[in-house]
Amino acid sequence: MAHQGYKVGIDIGGTNTIAGIVNGRGECIGKAGFLTQTCTSVDDFAAKLAGAITGLLEEWVPGKAVGGIGVASPAARQREGTIQGPANLRWNSINIVSLLKTHFDVPIVVTNDSNAAAIGEMKYGAARGMRNFVVLTIGTGLGAGIVIDGRLLHGENGVAGELGHMTIEPGGRLCGCRRRGCVETYVSATGIRRTAAELMARSTEESELRSIPFTKLTADKIYEAARRGDPIAREAFEVTGKILGRVLSNTAAVFDPEAIILSGGLMNAGDLMMEPTIRSFDDNVLALNNKKSSIVRSHLNDGEAAILGASFLVGEAAEPQRQETPSSVKVGSGKAYQVK
Amino acid sequence: MAHQGYKVGIDIGGTNTIAGIVNGRGECIGKAGFLTQTCTSVDDFAAKLAGAITGLLEEWVPGKAVGGIGVASPAARQREGTIQGPANLRWNSINIVSLLKTHFDVPIVVTNDSNAAAIGEMKYGAARGMRNFVVLTIGTGLGAGIVIDGRLLHGENGVAGELGHMTIEPGGRLCGCRRRGCVETYVSATGIRRTAAELMARSTEESELRSIPFTKLTADKIYEAARRGDPIAREAFEVTGKILGRVLSNTAAVFDPEAIILSGGLMNAGDLMMEPTIRSFDDNVLALNNKKSSIVRSHLNDGEAAILGASFLVGEAAEPQRQETPSSVKVGSGKAYQVK
Repeated sequence: MAHQGYKVGIDIGGTNTIAGIVNGRGECIGKAGFLTQTCTSVDDFAAKLAGAITGLLEEWVPGKAVGGIGVASPAARQREGTIQGPANLRWNSINIVSLLKTHFDVPIVVTNDSNAAAIGEMKYGAARGMRNFVVLTIGTGLGAGIVIDGRLLHGENGVAGELGHMTIEPGGRLCGCRRRGCVETYVSATGIRRTAAELMARSTEESELRSIPFTKLTADKIYEAARRGDPIAREAFEVTGKILGRVLSNTAAVFDPEAIILSGGLMNAGDLMMEPTIRSFDDNVLALNNKKSSIVRSHLNDGEAAILGASFLVGEAAEPQRQETPSSVKVGSGKAYQVK
Repeated sequence: MAHQGYKVGIDIGGTNTIAGIVNGRGECIGKAGFLTQTCTSVDDFAAKLAGAITGLLEEWVPGKAVGGIGVASPAARQREGTIQGPANLRWNSINIVSLLKTHFDVPIVVTNDSNAAAIGEMKYGAARGMRNFVVLTIGTGLGAGIVIDGRLLHGENGVAGELGHMTIEPGGRLCGCRRRGCVETYVSATGIRRTAAELMARSTEESELRSIPFTKLTADKIYEAARRGDPIAREAFEVTGKILGRVLSNTAAVFDPEAIILSGGLMNAGDLMMEPTIRSFDDNVLALNNKKSSIVRSHLNDGEAAILGASFLVGEAAEPQRQETPSSVKVGSGKAYQVK
């Protein structure tokens, strides 16, 4: 049963915050956004977000009723309606639901971005009909939404699924979490920048990246350079894919999923990321898992899985807090969904 | 509802095969076993196992009816009743249920040893009443039984939970699975032997272990030497615990469990293993998981969790094969268990 009418889905990322209008068929018909990190305060962020939503509504659905607003964010606490000091964002805590309620008198829900992306893929994307899958969102950081037997993995305290903070290189790069060698210090938009810097330090090869200061070196610039054949930029994708392939082989060993779906800004690099990743996965996968888990790129646009998943959630009965009654999203034939 | 009467539970390990008589209260009242690897053939193994069971029955429950035999083994296929070429055992495939049926006319079931251990801990051990926990069995290899929201994690093809084959040291030790750096090449009875050999190679320190050939160097001998203060042996436990602590911090990040329960032969070393493990876990745990997942040593005797879990299973309705209908073990208040 698809939800009816229009809803708003919002994806708060470490780099961009994007709001989308979603129609009754789960299509994102219009989007607007702004740079998350340019916000100087919580109030500034809330004002920009409300402005983006208002602009969207006026442009795409003037005078029409909207069924609700679903917000996907790192470090979301669904029951409290808050976002609690996420590592990649600058504020300590926001009651995002209250802030938006002052502008919009509709049902509003906030949920973990990785779980929203998993719901989006399950409902409208590459995971339709699957019961066991993992969605990795590789943007500023690396998030994972994990579905087991049709249910989201939450864990005992609602903080399961931190694949971005598995140690992939013992004693390796310092992470925002204060530990070393976490997956997301390598496999993310910020990770590939560190890899490019490391490669420039190690080799003497010429590269257009050498004229860009570290703080201005983005995954987009590395991608553009790689497409022009820049050897350091190409090698940065090689190295990142090699590590991601190892992460995927570990993920397959642990979860035995039908598929691992790759999404997020870094995956916009397409084959530049996919080719070395698949090669490394094939080299590293346990014989037991071989040919069983497929590695696929999300066919939804960047951030759209989370927008769709969050907008889907707001139409359902309010999900109770994980700590007490773990929420569950069940998938039967691929059509019936139940969110308790 | 405890099952009634006596049953037999069997734990087939890479080193020892142990059969136990389990009473209606889930107590293992008698055990008998033999060295798995001394068996020259499948027939020899079956004969030794049947002999051990017969001896047990005659000694402990002469003339009494037995409710069934539950077998826990690596690489078990429950529906087929077979064990399929496990990495640490010498044979290719055994139809263990048929072989035992020629000797004993009772219900017989074979199940994965790690899952049996998880059921044993949930029903009679350290995980009573828990809904989210992980049981690591650290013996010849390292197996994991993972329970999420009261259900065993099986995965899409029934091969999930291979924590022993996560890569913990990229490019590290060669594993039986033909990959490098797997957890079980470090954290296992065979892993600590390799660690001791490595330490002897690196240092010039005197050690009683230097007079023991590699093939005769067992975890037991390293334990005995460590208790006598041997520096290489002590360091071998230090190194093993340090790596296990890292594995546990990754496991907590992924599953957010209420507890991780450590069992298996290597854990017989008690504080020699637990102390460096807990220290390393505390050093490496993600802030998000800190103080949330407890690390506890199983209080059941070595192999007993699997024996109890397997014997529990045989009393229940036959579990369908995982591939088609994932079996589920549900725990409600800590009293009601349902095995479909």
